[in-house]
Amino acid sequence: MTKTRVLTGITTTGTPHLGNYVGAIKPAIEASQDPTVQSFYFLADFHALIKCQDPKRVQESRREIAATWLALGLDTDNAIFYRQSDVPEIPELMWLLNCVCAKGLMNRAHAYKGAVAENEEAGIEDADRGISMGLFSYPVLMAADILMFNAHKVPVGRDQIQHIEMARDMAGRFNHLFKGNYFTMPEAVTDEKSQLLLGLDGRKMSKSYNNTIPLFGTEKQLLKSVRKIKTNSLEPGEPKDPDTCSLFQIYSAFATEAEVAAMREQYAAGIGWGDAKNQLFEYLNDHLKAPREHYVELMEDPAHVEAILKRGAERARDEAAPMMARLRSAVGLGNFI
Amino acid sequence: MTKTRVLTGITTTGTPHLGNYVGAIKPAIEASQDPTVQSFYFLADFHALIKCQDPKRVQESRREIAATWLALGLDTDNAIFYRQSDVPEIPELMWLLNCVCAKGLMNRAHAYKGAVAENEEAGIEDADRGISMGLFSYPVLMAADILMFNAHKVPVGRDQIQHIEMARDMAGRFNHLFKGNYFTMPEAVTDEKSQLLLGLDGRKMSKSYNNTIPLFGTEKQLLKSVRKIKTNSLEPGEPKDPDTCSLFQIYSAFATEAEVAAMREQYAAGIGWGDAKNQLFEYLNDHLKAPREHYVELMEDPAHVEAILKRGAERARDEAAPMMARLRSAVGLGNFI
Repeated sequence: MTKTRVLTGITTTGTPHLGNYVGAIKPAIEASQDPTVQSFYFLADFHALIKCQDPKRVQESRREIAATWLALGLDTDNAIFYRQSDVPEIPELMWLLNCVCAKGLMNRAHAYKGAVAENEEAGIEDADRGISMGLFSYPVLMAADILMFNAHKVPVGRDQIQHIEMARDMAGRFNHLFKGNYFTMPEAVTDEKSQLLLGLDGRKMSKSYNNTIPLFGTEKQLLKSVRKIKTNSLEPGEPKDPDTCSLFQIYSAFATEAEVAAMREQYAAGIGWGDAKNQLFEYLNDHLKAPREHYVELMEDPAHVEAILKRGAERARDEAAPMMARLRSAVGLGNFI
Repeated sequence: MTKTRVLTGITTTGTPHLGNYVGAIKPAIEASQDPTVQSFYFLADFHALIKCQDPKRVQESRREIAATWLALGLDTDNAIFYRQSDVPEIPELMWLLNCVCAKGLMNRAHAYKGAVAENEEAGIEDADRGISMGLFSYPVLMAADILMFNAHKVPVGRDQIQHIEMARDMAGRFNHLFKGNYFTMPEAVTDEKSQLLLGLDGRKMSKSYNNTIPLFGTEKQLLKSVRKIKTNSLEPGEPKDPDTCSLFQIYSAFATEAEVAAMREQYAAGIGWGDAKNQLFEYLNDHLKAPREHYVELMEDPAHVEAILKRGAERARDEAAPMMARLRSAVGLGNFI
């Protein structure tokens, strides 16, 4: 039986926070345990260069993200876990796809159009100002990421569905032009149930809002973050509404149903904010303690993480190299013998 | 003493003709014998995919061109001779350059603007119709070809000078952003003396005019081609003007000064066209016989040519791999240890 290939790219410009964990990392690691699935997880570090020209930040983020996924129990015997930049076949395939991808398709990509719209709103005459070829052509790189491994399913946010459609477009055009069934048509999977975590200020927890709780900060940092969560001015003893409360929402994302129900009763009984914050901190801290320790060990042992990623890249290249050899022959770039 | 690095890409969509030989191949092979120069010659086969979606044509052209340069005496112990597609660092570098290259720069590239102008003249509403991302972004690939090897000089036609300027632009921007002297600024070299050969119809010999004489066709084909060269209706015995005559021009490109002077006298003395054509054929045939035999041998021994190109690619990668490692570290994609 052929396994369903599920491919997920992880952007490497930030430090993982609780929102990433609840919304993306935890469900992805769980999904990779499905025996009918072959998961591919990769650090999308070539993509990171589009937005980030700070080498230290890119490098740190790659290390932090790799250590985070491993600390949280990603089974790398099962899932194929690699850095995009360790698979030279990917940029090679990007060029092949460039040659079958209409420029007009890229003109219509959301990220590019958004950047142009920003320039126009700001009254800037050159609509392309500040837009790099990296930003403009990144859906082609993303298509290469996906098509390289003939992924069947690609879990994405709604804003990325268009890119999967573009990958299908390029795949179809290549198959047609070079008369073969070279590429599988990937499907976007958007998880409607995917949990959004609220941040310190009550908005969605996101790096761009600067309202995150780092996943593996120190115990002290975690306490500090939790204390900063915005609450209202109700006094201890006054009943509180859990359903409009970030504290409660974050607690719910981690706790069992019974624990959530018990906390709901405490809110009704007028739990004080200080008390609620202490309970949330204790709960998170208990939950994160073991993986945090593992994370710290991994961050102190870069050689170990490097070895795991290199092994992942080898496994990825075991797929990519024969695929690329086939594609080369298809376009006329095969060896002479 | 550091040698001057001269880099030349050879497009691989056609079969080499006499015009290629006189205008490009012969001077390039001669230049590569200069002991103060390190030459890089590469089959630009990634570029070929922009224009040619016929795999058989791309593959044949690569074989023919490789065999041609070798048959004509390219010294591959001296020059580094490789296929672009055998150096995976080149598309990797292309991505790094994409991320520092303004899209606006590509909007202004001649080839792209020319294609847009054609659409507009044809009254096509979508100015980008039929334009691929390959065509649009190819100056970035060309910059990667050049900057990968820190080439000092790049011999190009006038239409390509802009691309060298673009490569300098990307190099400068990368050096500035990542605070180092990573890339050498390449210089375009346009050879004003470069000889243009006239074709069968008296226009410049060019694949696009379909007026070429194949360099290594059979003897019979060569005779047939020479017989097709357009001449005027002057009879034998009437004096003829050598300076407006393709036959004479082609002869001059190969013959010594003394031989050219002697032929000039024959024109004044009223040589018949049939006679002149026979003399040209004999001369060319004598000149091309030995390399043609070598060419045929090489075409019959693809394994030998493959081995030479693979060795060239290894030499190229001996330069490219450490360079790329340095660039990776510069942008934050270095190994973790």
